Parts: sequence; C-alpha cells; structure tokens
Amino acid sequence: SAHAADKATTIPAKAVAAATELRDKAMADNTGYEFVSALTTEVGPRLAGSEADKRGVEWTVAKFKAMGFDKVYTEKVSYPLWERHSEHAAIVAPFPQPLALTALGYSAGTPAGGLTAEVVAFDTLEAFKAADPATVKGKIVYVSTHMTQQKDGHDYGMGSATRTRGPVLAAQMGAAAYLLRSAGTDPHSRTPHTGVTGFTDPKDAIPAAALSLPDADQLERVLKEGKPVTLKLDLDVGFKGTYEGMNVIGEVTGRKKPKEVVAIGGHLDSWDLGTGAIDDGAGVAIAAAAAKLIKDMPQRPDRTIRVIAFANEEMGLWGGRAYAEAHAKDVSNFQLGTESDFGAGRIWRMTASVKPEARGAIEQIAKVIEPIGVAYDPNKPGGGGSDLSQMHAKGMAALSLTQDGTDYFDYHHNANDTLDKIDPKALAQNVAVYAAFAYMAAQADGNFGSAAGAFAKDGAHD
Amino acid sequence: SAHAADKATTIPAKAVAAATELRDKAMADNTGYEFVSALTTEVGPRLAGSEADKRGVEWTVAKFKAMGFDKVYTEKVSYPLWERHSEHAAIVAPFPQPLALTALGYSAGTPAGGLTAEVVAFDTLEAFKAADPATVKGKIVYVSTHMTQQKDGHDYGMGSATRTRGPVLAAQMGAAAYLLRSAGTDPHSRTPHTGVTGFTDPKDAIPAAALSLPDADQLERVLKEGKPVTLKLDLDVGFKGTYEGMNVIGEVTGRKKPKEVVAIGGHLDSWDLGTGAIDDGAGVAIAAAAAKLIKDMPQRPDRTIRVIAFANEEMGLWGGRAYAEAHAKDVSNFQLGTESDFGAGRIWRMTASVKPEARGAIEQIAKVIEPIGVAYDPNKPGGGGSDLSQMHAKGMAALSLTQDGTDYFDYHHNANDTLDKIDPKALAQNVAVYAAFAYMAAQADGNFGSAAGAFAKDGAHD
Ligand SMILES: [Zn+2]
Ligand SMILES: [Zn+2]
Ligand SMILES: [Zn+2]
Ligand SMILES: [Zn+2]
Repeated sequence: SAHAADKATTIPAKAVAAATELRDKAMADNTGYEFVSALTTEVGPRLAGSEADKRGVEWTVAKFKAMGFDKVYTEKVSYPLWERHSEHAAIVAPFPQPLALTALGYSAGTPAGGLTAEVVAFDTLEAFKAADPATVKGKIVYVSTHMTQQKDGHDYGMGSATRTRGPVLAAQMGAAAYLLRSAGTDPHSRTPHTGVTGFTDPKDAIPAAALSLPDADQLERVLKEGKPVTLKLDLDVGFKGTYEGMNVIGEVTGRKKPKEVVAIGGHLDSWDLGTGAIDDGAGVAIAAAAAKLIKDMPQRPDRTIRVIAFANEEMGLWGGRAYAEAHAKDVSNFQLGTESDFGAGRIWRMTASVKPEARGAIEQIAKVIEPIGVAYDPNKPGGGGSDLSQMHAKGMAALSLTQDGTDYFDYHHNANDTLDKIDPKALAQNVAVYAAFAYMAAQADGNFGSAAGAFAKDGAHD
Repeated sequence: SAHAADKATTIPAKAVAAATELRDKAMADNTGYEFVSALTTEVGPRLAGSEADKRGVEWTVAKFKAMGFDKVYTEKVSYPLWERHSEHAAIVAPFPQPLALTALGYSAGTPAGGLTAEVVAFDTLEAFKAADPATVKGKIVYVSTHMTQQKDGHDYGMGSATRTRGPVLAAQMGAAAYLLRSAGTDPHSRTPHTGVTGFTDPKDAIPAAALSLPDADQLERVLKEGKPVTLKLDLDVGFKGTYEGMNVIGEVTGRKKPKEVVAIGGHLDSWDLGTGAIDDGAGVAIAAAAAKLIKDMPQRPDRTIRVIAFANEEMGLWGGRAYAEAHAKDVSNFQLGTESDFGAGRIWRMTASVKPEARGAIEQIAKVIEPIGVAYDPNKPGGGGSDLSQMHAKGMAALSLTQDGTDYFDYHHNANDTLDKIDPKALAQNVAVYAAFAYMAAQADGNFGSAAGAFAKDGAHD
C-alpha cells in the first residue's frame, strides 16, 4: 500500500529515557492536585456563561501565566446562554411531599407559580418511544432508565440518551414536561444529576428535569400503589440570549518545530451543582500539570505542547466545535492529541487512531506507561476525548486514555462533584501518562498521520 | 438489704419457649419493613407541627387500627412551632460561590435579603468557649467539630453539643450568626445535617445553620488562604407560635393484668430534609411490628404491650416529656420499657436498669436474644431510649437495646435519611428482639422494680 512505503515513525531512545524519568517524577508530583484544588476552591462551580465562567477564564489565564507557559491566549466561543435560578418539585397527590430534582440544560422554565400535571411512567426510553402520543399529551412523562457502576461507564450511553433524546421526544408528543430517573449510579444519594438535553431551539423546549435516585424510587413506589399521581414542578430556568465565552490556551513552545503541536486538555466549564472537580477540573489540571512538568525539563521539547481548557463542553461541545472549525485547516500540524474528561481515576487503557507507520511509536509509548498500569489495546480506535473528538473528526491523530470510571457516575453532574472525590495519587498517575506520551510525541521522528479527512472511518465515538 | 428479701422475678419456662418461637418468626417476618416503607412513602417527611405531622398522626392511628391493636388513642403534646421555608448561603468574598447548608431547629431567620458578615472560625466548641467575646461580636461564628463513624456513635456527644450549645453561646457573645460543620460522618455528601439548637426563647435566637462536610472543607480551605472571608446567609425560618400535636398509642391489652404495661416505641416526627426512615420511622415500625406479632399469638399476653409513637422528639423530647408528666403517677404500673431511636442497624447489646431481684429475668431474656447477635452487659444501666428516658427518670425499669450505628450519622438529620438506608433483615432482627423481650416481660412472675424515684442514680443518660 501507499502507507507501507512511508518511513516508520519512531521515538529516539534518548526521548524514551527522558519520558521514563518524567513519568516517575510526575508520579510523585502534586502539581495537578494543587491545580484542581485551587480552581475548585477559588472559582467554585463554573456554569457556562455565568459570572463564575468569566472568573474561571481569568483565573486560568493568570494560572497558566504563573505556571510559566511560553504563550497564554484565549479564543472566542459563542453559544446560547442558559440560566438556572431555582427549582422545586413535589408530589401533590395522592401523598403530598417534596421531591429532590434538578432542571436539565436547555430545559424551559415552568410558568410562574409552577406546572401541575399527572405523571405517565415508562421503564425505558424504548418503551416511551413506543407510546401512543395521545397517552402523554398534557402529562408529565417520567422515564426510569437504570444505570449501574462500570469501569468504562458504558451504561451512560443509555442514561444520556434518556436525558438528551427523551425531552425532545416528549415535546414532540405534546407532553407538559419530562422527568427522568437521574443518569447516575449512587442509589443512596439525594443529589439529582443534571446534564444537557437535545433541545436546540428555545421555542421547542419544555420543562425537563431529573429526580435523584432515592426520589425516583419514591415516585415509583407511589406509582405502584395504583392511584393517579400528580406532580407540581416549579423551575425558574431558561434560555437568555447568546454568550461569548473563551477557550483558554497555554503553550510550551517547541524548540525545533514550534508550529507542530501535541494537543491536550480538558474543559473549563462545569455544571453548577458541584464545583466541577472530577468534571472537569481534573482534566484541565492533568493537562496543565503534564505541560508544566515538560516545561521544567532542561530544554523545551522539539514540538509545542498545547494545553486547551475548553469553553462550554457541557451544553454541547461548544468549545471543541469552535476550536475544530477554527483549526481544521491546520490539522496536519496536530502531531497527536487527546483530552481528559472522565474524572480523576487511574488510566488503565490506551488506544490510538494513527497511521500504520506510527504503530511502532505508539508501542514505544505503551512500554513507558505500562509499568504504571496502562494496557495498550491495538485493536480499538482512539477518539481524542470529548472536545478534541472534534479535531479528530477533522483528521487529527488521537489517543484515548481511558480512566477508571467506576464511581464517576456517582458524582458526575451532581452536587457531590467536589474536590474530596479526587485521589491525589490517582490524579498524579494521569499526569504521568499525559506527560510521558506528550513528550514522546513531541520528540518523535515522524508524525502520527494527521491529515484532513484521516481516520474518518476509525469507529471512534468519544 | 430490703431488696434481698423480695422474691426473684422469673420468666416461666412456657413463656421463654413461646418467646423463642416468636423471635424466630419475627426474624423471617416483613411487618416492620412494610410499616416503615408505607409511612415514609405515604406520609414522607414529618416535621413536628407541619401539615405532614398532622397527616402522620392520622396515618398512624389508621395503621394501628388496621393492624388490629385492641386500643388506639392519642394524647396531646404542646410545643413551640418552628418552620423552615427556604435557606441559602454563599461565600461573598474572597471567592464567591454557593454553600450547601441547612438551618438548625429553633434558629432565627435572617433579615429579608439576607445577612452578610465576616467569619470567625474555631476548631472546636472548647476553643470557641475560650474566645474573647469582642472577637466574635457582629461576626458569623464557625465551629469545625469533626465526627467519625463508630458503632456506638459516641462522637455525637461532641457533635450535638456543638450544635445545641454553640448557637446559644454565640448569641450570648453577640455574634450575628452561628455555623457549624455538620454533626455527621459522611465526608463526601453535600447533604447538611439539621437538628435542634439550645434556643428556648425566640427572643434569644440568632440564625444558626450547618454546612455539609464538603462545604465545611471548602470554607476551611478558603479560610486557610488567610484573607478575610465574608458569607451571606439567607434563612427564611423561625418560630411561629404554639402547636398542639399528638402522641399516638396502640395497645395489645393484657389478659390478666391489663393495667400493667410493657412500653415500647419510637418517635413519629422527623426532620424535614429526608423522609425520616432511620430517624425514626424505623423505631415506630420496630415497636409496632413487635406488638403486632405478639397480638397474633394464640392468646393475649398477661400484661399490656403499649406502643407509643411520640410527638416532636426532635426539637426537645416534647412528646416524651409530656408523656412522663402525664403518667408519672402510674410509673409502678410500667413493667419495663425501652424505645428504638438509633436507626435500623442490628441490636448488638442489651443493658438494663432493674431491681436486683429482676436480674435473673433479664438474664433469661438475654439467653433468648443472644443467638441473634445481642450481648448482655450486666454492668451498664439501661436508659430506655430517647423519649422513654423521661419515664425512666420517673422510675420506670428500662432497657437499652443498642443498635449498630456505624453509618447512622452518615444519614441522620439530612436529606439522605430515606428508605433505601434500611436493610429489611436488620430491621427484622430488631423486631425479633423487641417482640421477645416485650413478651417475656409481659409474662414475668414479678416486676422489674419500677417505682417513683427508682433508678435515679443509675448513670443512664440516653
Ligand atoms: Zn465533562
Ligand atoms: Zn459533564
Ligand atoms: Zn430520633
Ligand atoms: Zn433525630
């Protein structure tokens, strides 16, 4: 094939040795944890478009400068502004009592004074899809998708579909509102999980919210008694025009090929219920700490290490899409990239979407990170993570560095996403993996195959 | 001594055999769990004096009748009414962000629009007691007592003192408000713990509230940065006159000595944040199920089994104190008593305050419940539990049936006190212990020493 004629990409032995040393230094280093501790303490929750989002951008610019990055800059990202002011719910009949719920992103508000309607319940999104629209018209649709803990969090596919597609379908069927059992895995916590819906136009939106798991159980027990169940929802939330946010970028400039970049990052915005520690302060911290450790080496790497703190991932990859639009024409300059956005658990697997001639270099990276618990699976693609999936879709060679997400959906998108959920040692392991891979990619002889339209059919979907 | 001349109290062999059978039946019976499931589902939270409290009384009267108790009646209990409408808090400076907190019982509200003041922090209640009042005047006092999990929950002594006495002291010293780190043990849950303060007169009360443990950690991290920290509290809570509630009583009437009673129970009221499953729906359920199982025996017991669902234990043993005032003159008719109010974990220890001549009968009870995990400690007093401690103080012979409270303070007085925290098997073990002891006490030849003023110096303090 044409590929077979290309020269194989390799990592020089000296770079492998330096990456090994870097890895061990990172495993004992606290830079990542200090970053996420300071971000979540000094800024707190960072809902996209909120006053705190603006402070988060300023904080990150200042922090990247204080960390000594060679270049620190921002790039604009425009998106619809959505606000949450207050949210209450109660069973009105047959057994009056409050319920713990949270509105979903892009939900409409209820009329002032609240919305009262009967509930129609479905066990699954599939069952709801099969419903006769006449049975849900004017009602509050409730869908009870159950998720359980898994290392790779695969139940979230079903949970997030219930959250994103369910409300859109309910609106199309004429429902008054939509409720789901939270897309989460802690059955004992009264902390409902928020997250975005599939509404794209304020005109199409209806009130949509999630019950905590114990509240979902409670509603299901009440429904089981067989009497009509009426709920009142009072959601003061909604769209409010357009906002201009920022991707924040910090670089360690390459010594030999400064225009060729290894792209790493996380998203700076968070939901407002917790402080966005595991989602995704940790991701930004991992990438920033990895770049800082590379910067502290005796000399700059050959290529540039670019840390991107993306704007508004939560409501639809707004930062990632804006970034990919702006940089698609430069895709071949992106040596390799991946984003951290699955919490702060240890990385246990690496997969890659690279050209065949770069598989050897990926194996070299794999050997350096294998001793700290990362297995290389050569048979799966690498998707680049949440926002950087958009650059991968444009043709950027990408890794997936899969974290242990066993408890991720206990805390994800709810009030319990706070600093105490992060194990500093596990976070340091992430930094070590990012530092080692980024440095080796920056020092490689040859590229990983980034080109416009490359990898379009690799099957990656993260 | 005078006691030595009395005849020893004993349990007839036939009663021991019947109690053993009753114990085994109870271990496999679901009546207790069904009771607490229905109470917490059909009534929900039961804040003393609320509309739900009234529904809870009606529900319990109806339930006791449906269970077939021979007598069901109520007794009035008057107490100050305290209401919670809404509660919000935020760090204003240096790092603006919301904090999860809950107002404490008998807290004053803040002025409309909220109260903003600087924080003065103390590690312990002792440190706060030693403070110069001038340093806290006009400030928000914050006390950071730390509790950890224990089987017997002894840290709650320190935690509840910080919650009850701290606010009173803060008010006396001229503080603007009082905050504590929640008297709870789950470091990862954003669910603050409420509970009563020591305020007795609305005129003396100041705003008093608890931060969830992660929020307390957050405030402490912010304080550690060394800048002045300003908080805003907005608590719409407060006293609102007097309320007349009800103790609800159900009886299985004794066949031979109907006026002599074995008293068991729990408290019907709960805090409003959860549904009052472990505190104390479980206690009422355990007592009611035990009595129901005794009622279902071939014939009524010799003495009466009285189940008391107390009113407003939470804000100061109001139901228990009213009960003791009303029944003190009959104390010698109370054969033996104890209340369940420490969750739904298994009972692991029995202690007793009885006359010396009844120790043998207590040992007979101990032998029946030992096979299901209960150790008898003859060297400690039995205090009768929360509300029934008041009858014990009047001279009622009493047991303490100590539950495993390892996780009790994870959920106690917070939004996570919901049905899912109850293990049906552990609840059934409690019912088995209550049924076996109550039946044996009802069948005893002789009494356990109840008399006006007895046991005044037994050292019991629960
Ligand atoms: Zn994320
Ligand atoms: Zn997220
Ligand atoms: Zn209690
Ligand atoms: Zn309590």
